[in-house]
Amino acid sequence: MGQKIKLGMVGGGQGAFIGAVHRIASRIDDRYELVAGAFSSNPESALASGKGLGITDNRNYQNFQEMAEKESQREDKIDAVAIVTPNHMHHPIAMEFMNKGFHIICDKPLAMNLKQCEELVQASQSNNILFALTHNYTGYPMVRNAKAMCENGDIGNIRVIQAEYAQDWLTEDLENKNDSGGNKQASWRTDPAQSGGGGCIGDIGTHAFNLIRFITGLEPHEINAELTSFVSGRQLDDNAQISIRFQGGAKGTIWSSQVAPGNENHLMIRIYGDKGGLEWCQEDPNYLYYTPFGEAKRKITRGGAGSLQLANDVSRIPPGHPEGYLEGFANIYTEVADAIIDFNNGNYDPKKYLFPKVEDGLEGIRFIERSIASNASNSSWVNF
Amino acid sequence: MGQKIKLGMVGGGQGAFIGAVHRIASRIDDRYELVAGAFSSNPESALASGKGLGITDNRNYQNFQEMAEKESQREDKIDAVAIVTPNHMHHPIAMEFMNKGFHIICDKPLAMNLKQCEELVQASQSNNILFALTHNYTGYPMVRNAKAMCENGDIGNIRVIQAEYAQDWLTEDLENKNDSGGNKQASWRTDPAQSGGGGCIGDIGTHAFNLIRFITGLEPHEINAELTSFVSGRQLDDNAQISIRFQGGAKGTIWSSQVAPGNENHLMIRIYGDKGGLEWCQEDPNYLYYTPFGEAKRKITRGGAGSLQLANDVSRIPPGHPEGYLEGFANIYTEVADAIIDFNNGNYDPKKYLFPKVEDGLEGIRFIERSIASNASNSSWVNF
Amino acid sequence: MGQKIKLGMVGGGQGAFIGAVHRIASRIDDRYELVAGAFSSNPESALASGKGLGITDNRNYQNFQEMAEKESQREDKIDAVAIVTPNHMHHPIAMEFMNKGFHIICDKPLAMNLKQCEELVQASQSNNILFALTHNYTGYPMVRNAKAMCENGDIGNIRVIQAEYAQDWLTEDLENKNDSGGNKQASWRTDPAQSGGGGCIGDIGTHAFNLIRFITGLEPHEINAELTSFVSGRQLDDNAQISIRFQGGAKGTIWSSQVAPGNENHLMIRIYGDKGGLEWCQEDPNYLYYTPFGEAKRKITRGGAGSLQLANDVSRIPPGHPEGYLEGFANIYTEVADAIIDFNNGNYDPKKYLFPKVEDGLEGIRFIERSIASNASNSSWVNF
Amino acid sequence: MGQKIKLGMVGGGQGAFIGAVHRIASRIDDRYELVAGAFSSNPESALASGKGLGITDNRNYQNFQEMAEKESQREDKIDAVAIVTPNHMHHPIAMEFMNKGFHIICDKPLAMNLKQCEELVQASQSNNILFALTHNYTGYPMVRNAKAMCENGDIGNIRVIQAEYAQDWLTEDLENKNDSGGNKQASWRTDPAQSGGGGCIGDIGTHAFNLIRFITGLEPHEINAELTSFVSGRQLDDNAQISIRFQGGAKGTIWSSQVAPGNENHLMIRIYGDKGGLEWCQEDPNYLYYTPFGEAKRKITRGGAGSLQLANDVSRIPPGHPEGYLEGFANIYTEVADAIIDFNNGNYDPKKYLFPKVEDGLEGIRFIERSIASNASNSSWVNF
Repeated sequence: MGQKIKLGMVGGGQGAFIGAVHRIASRIDDRYELVAGAFSSNPESALASGKGLGITDNRNYQNFQEMAEKESQREDKIDAVAIVTPNHMHHPIAMEFMNKGFHIICDKPLAMNLKQCEELVQASQSNNILFALTHNYTGYPMVRNAKAMCENGDIGNIRVIQAEYAQDWLTEDLENKNDSGGNKQASWRTDPAQSGGGGCIGDIGTHAFNLIRFITGLEPHEINAELTSFVSGRQLDDNAQISIRFQGGAKGTIWSSQVAPGNENHLMIRIYGDKGGLEWCQEDPNYLYYTPFGEAKRKITRGGAGSLQLANDVSRIPPGHPEGYLEGFANIYTEVADAIIDFNNGNYDPKKYLFPKVEDGLEGIRFIERSIASNASNSSWVNF
Repeated sequence: MGQKIKLGMVGGGQGAFIGAVHRIASRIDDRYELVAGAFSSNPESALASGKGLGITDNRNYQNFQEMAEKESQREDKIDAVAIVTPNHMHHPIAMEFMNKGFHIICDKPLAMNLKQCEELVQASQSNNILFALTHNYTGYPMVRNAKAMCENGDIGNIRVIQAEYAQDWLTEDLENKNDSGGNKQASWRTDPAQSGGGGCIGDIGTHAFNLIRFITGLEPHEINAELTSFVSGRQLDDNAQISIRFQGGAKGTIWSSQVAPGNENHLMIRIYGDKGGLEWCQEDPNYLYYTPFGEAKRKITRGGAGSLQLANDVSRIPPGHPEGYLEGFANIYTEVADAIIDFNNGNYDPKKYLFPKVEDGLEGIRFIERSIASNASNSSWVNF
Repeated sequence: MGQKIKLGMVGGGQGAFIGAVHRIASRIDDRYELVAGAFSSNPESALASGKGLGITDNRNYQNFQEMAEKESQREDKIDAVAIVTPNHMHHPIAMEFMNKGFHIICDKPLAMNLKQCEELVQASQSNNILFALTHNYTGYPMVRNAKAMCENGDIGNIRVIQAEYAQDWLTEDLENKNDSGGNKQASWRTDPAQSGGGGCIGDIGTHAFNLIRFITGLEPHEINAELTSFVSGRQLDDNAQISIRFQGGAKGTIWSSQVAPGNENHLMIRIYGDKGGLEWCQEDPNYLYYTPFGEAKRKITRGGAGSLQLANDVSRIPPGHPEGYLEGFANIYTEVADAIIDFNNGNYDPKKYLFPKVEDGLEGIRFIERSIASNASNSSWVNF
Repeated sequence: MGQKIKLGMVGGGQGAFIGAVHRIASRIDDRYELVAGAFSSNPESALASGKGLGITDNRNYQNFQEMAEKESQREDKIDAVAIVTPNHMHHPIAMEFMNKGFHIICDKPLAMNLKQCEELVQASQSNNILFALTHNYTGYPMVRNAKAMCENGDIGNIRVIQAEYAQDWLTEDLENKNDSGGNKQASWRTDPAQSGGGGCIGDIGTHAFNLIRFITGLEPHEINAELTSFVSGRQLDDNAQISIRFQGGAKGTIWSSQVAPGNENHLMIRIYGDKGGLEWCQEDPNYLYYTPFGEAKRKITRGGAGSLQLANDVSRIPPGHPEGYLEGFANIYTEVADAIIDFNNGNYDPKKYLFPKVEDGLEGIRFIERSIASNASNSSWVNF
């Protein structure tokens, strides 16, 4: 087992969803120790949250600026900080910590706009920072299996990509229902000031977009987006239908929706080449369906026959014992731990690691911005 | 049991696929008697085919003109003619028979272009002809169940429609492989002279389009189409990604492909409203998935709980004993038989019958033409 | 196309289920003409039913004895008779018609007891009768594919067989609910006088048993049965759990139930050998799952890759267009038509035809009787 | 968040499977600290394993006796010990630690025979020990949902239970293939000296048995077992077909196999009552299928509509983000942590906690022993 990484966290206090997920993900392979945090933008809530998480008082900070400052002065300073706040805070927090030399694990989408992204990329390079973005679905073993199969030519030249991420929790006007348990999550995700210009496209559409790039390695050439807010009064899109012309000639669509009753987290990607097809669904992530053209469809299971070494390397238990979302997320964290150790040993090679990086985050924001631009011009094609 | 209809057929001779399907469909409920035909554009092949089908010699015709002429002069003339030729012959044949007063059962797509369609609509009206178009998927009981649920408001106001029809049989250049068994089917379907300007969009995309209109009752306002021919040298599209803005504000996409390995006849439609969602797949047609928003997903089975009367009316066997494609096709035929009897009795009411009609065929051709027009203008939005 | 067979029917009048199924099955491939019948044990109902089916008056009989007698004297006599009455009438009717030299198509189970079966076997041999039993599930193409794969050694030596046939329609006391639509079906099926000593084991368990024998070719050595009537007052079993030791060492179980809510016609068979496994479900009959040991599971589709010639020979439409129960049933009928023609031409070879025969019916009754015997001796093992 | 439990471990060193699972499970909710261990029966391997796990030298023991002795003398002694050795060591280790007052978390099956189990139950009572058995499948949220639904009467009086646990990894003679990666696991599991008299029935059949008892609350009255070793030379059963008569009249079967190609960890349970049915599969554990009799089948998802409070209490992430085997296992660990804290506070109430206990382990061994006894008397019924 490798050495433990000292982790700090900004955001993720009581009532937050994704902060708890990051913490579990960091624990699963026992590669992290959470030692410091500024867990809320509200100082009182921050301290209470940190106390509840067992953070010692002198590393339980009231705000991220104090945290960055004080941690940077400690001998036993954190190795990395996980940023799990609403989107609009990613940029200032990441800049602050990068300027102090800390590695970053940041939730997606990376920032509010391309300009911020470029500053983050720039700062990561100039400060020599390892910057991971938690597009966690890239951590699923069968997603990596699909990526390797594309690279191996198992499906030939890729022609068609159909990706979709559908949910139903915003079918009604949840953001204005004060009595709802989901209210807080709905409110910031539908508020342009906290989320940026993309609603469902930024919240989940970017995951689908990232997954396409991750698995196929293809980059968009032109994009066309139809964004809709179906719920009356909603400020951001809750349904997005997007077409992509990829460099090299492949064609793709992304459908992303938060108003599709019967869909919980239906993220699906289907990839068709001139030699075969691949199909994967996030809700049943241990299965990858592979059809070599002219042969019967095969169900490749995580760890089973047809599961490749790179997939098995990020598996913990035998086939038939399902791993899920948290294990996929943990794979990102564990890779980052390995990368930090390599970094500290002076032999960090980004190509060795599959976790998404700040540059992928920039592409994600470009996806959102170009989609909004297309939508604003009657959903015409725009360059990517 | 109702009275038997005397049926003639044009096309559908030896080696054809869809003609045999029409014949089985006409037999399943014992409502038709096939008594005449001109089964091929090649006179010798026509006669041989008719002989093989047990047609008496004097009603086994060498060509459709002779058939229309001679049948019109018989006392025991046919009641209706089934047209199951390649697309380019639909119009001349239907015109010939309508002018002689025969009812028409025509395969889809209706014709080669809108102008032909308008003539057919016009001729059907002026000659008082009952004209059915075999968009057979409308005959599946669970498709009708979905239609009724939409009308009943079970899913509320419809917002999003995702339809797709994917196949893989044209992944390779089948039309130019002379040794292939599928060759004949591939050749005419990829030949503009026989199929019209649409390839996969006309062959299968129109089915998806028709299914949307049939189930939801929605009509398009604007359309946007990206048509691609992936196989080198292919003259018509083999992949189509289409967006639709419906009248009233719903949004939809249709993906249609014949180059998606692992898909045989994957026709799927998903419909989401503000109160619930419906999902149906042609390959597993006895199941309709229904999610009332906020409740668990339900699997409605043909004839089982939640299966409505209009669905049960077109079912023959109990739930759990699957009906398939031929039974759905037969439902169209049986309805047409009933309609002809009503017609002969002077009380035909087209609203009473759900089978697609010549006007639906016109909308299908409009769909193809507007898609081609959009594609020709860099896949921009065009009015429907 | 082959010559048409002249068919008569006994039973299957108004309100019956299986008679209509037989008639559709006989029509699908256009190989039969229904020309005579005695459609009910009630003479008035018999005549009314025959009239509704378009039978000419002089061949629309009041009872089966009259029918056998008069048909035997006609020049244009029927070739075969379909017996679709409740079980207790199979034997007398079949004997009557065999003695007059007619071929038999009989619904299952064959008779009320082994003694009757032996007489039927004997009579079929002495009268040189072609006797088909409609264990219709043997007509599904993918069932035949499984049979051929077992014979080909694709799964090696068979070790374990798990078969089950579960329904839920008798969960409540339907036979005594007079207002229920299912009442008539429930009443005779739960009445020992009409059904014999087996309830659910005879109605559906025999199907599972026949399927095992058909696919694997294995014969039982010993059997052990636990039969239960869960519904208070029910005279016959509504749940059966059976273990089988096969000749040669394979082991199997059959679970059969009519009180399992959520199961419509859940007939499933799973077969495991030392080289692979096969899994098939009647409710999704176009799919056969095959796992060569150590490889990924494959989904073989009817007519698709991996679908063998003998399966394709009994298919009508391409893969992805589902065929169902009626088509499977039709395959039995069509084979019988071919067999009768061979018979008439003097070259009938029973090995050429896969449809179940009177001898299989005898084994089915032996299965019921031995199960009842085991159950009566505290579910101990009995010889088969 | 509750207080952390100090955990020791016996077994689970390098190359072991289940030890690593226990460690991850203990970490997921951050309720445990692994502070001591004797990780192998081989002292060198034990020390190396502990070192790799970051155990401080003075608590990294060469054997379990030393560990029990020295830990019992520490001020900061462990709260509980996890026993993750092959089966034959469970009893001596648990006895040793219980006699020193330590709480126990023990892998299943509990021991080698009933006598050992009775001693363990006795020792746990006399020493006032909290003894948890990791029948981990009881930790899945949807399993608990099923249990609550049975208790709530949602399916009425239970009549029929069909449980099965099938694997395929022992299809070949893996225990004697020295070059195989699975060799070590296969060897001890097929060796009576290490596993006890049950092979697949003990390894996985007991899980199915425990699941029945856990969900339904039913206890067996009589049992009948057919155990087979299909692989030549194998000393223990690799396939088991078991029938159970439950107290109160329900009937059930368990099929357990390790020679069923195509099955990885196919643990499925189906429960049918007079008001409805429930169906759950371990490989897709986030779904519970529920059919109220006479209504459509519903797919209840973890955390979604129909998911009850007790299920949601052991969930970490929203519906549609799958949890898996490790999370279910973690639920057992987290409950035990809560139970130990209650225990230390003097208010431990075993009824409050659902994790399986030593008494359940005894029933599991009784199941194995009675199955072996039945099998030895020609698979006749024996009292439970």
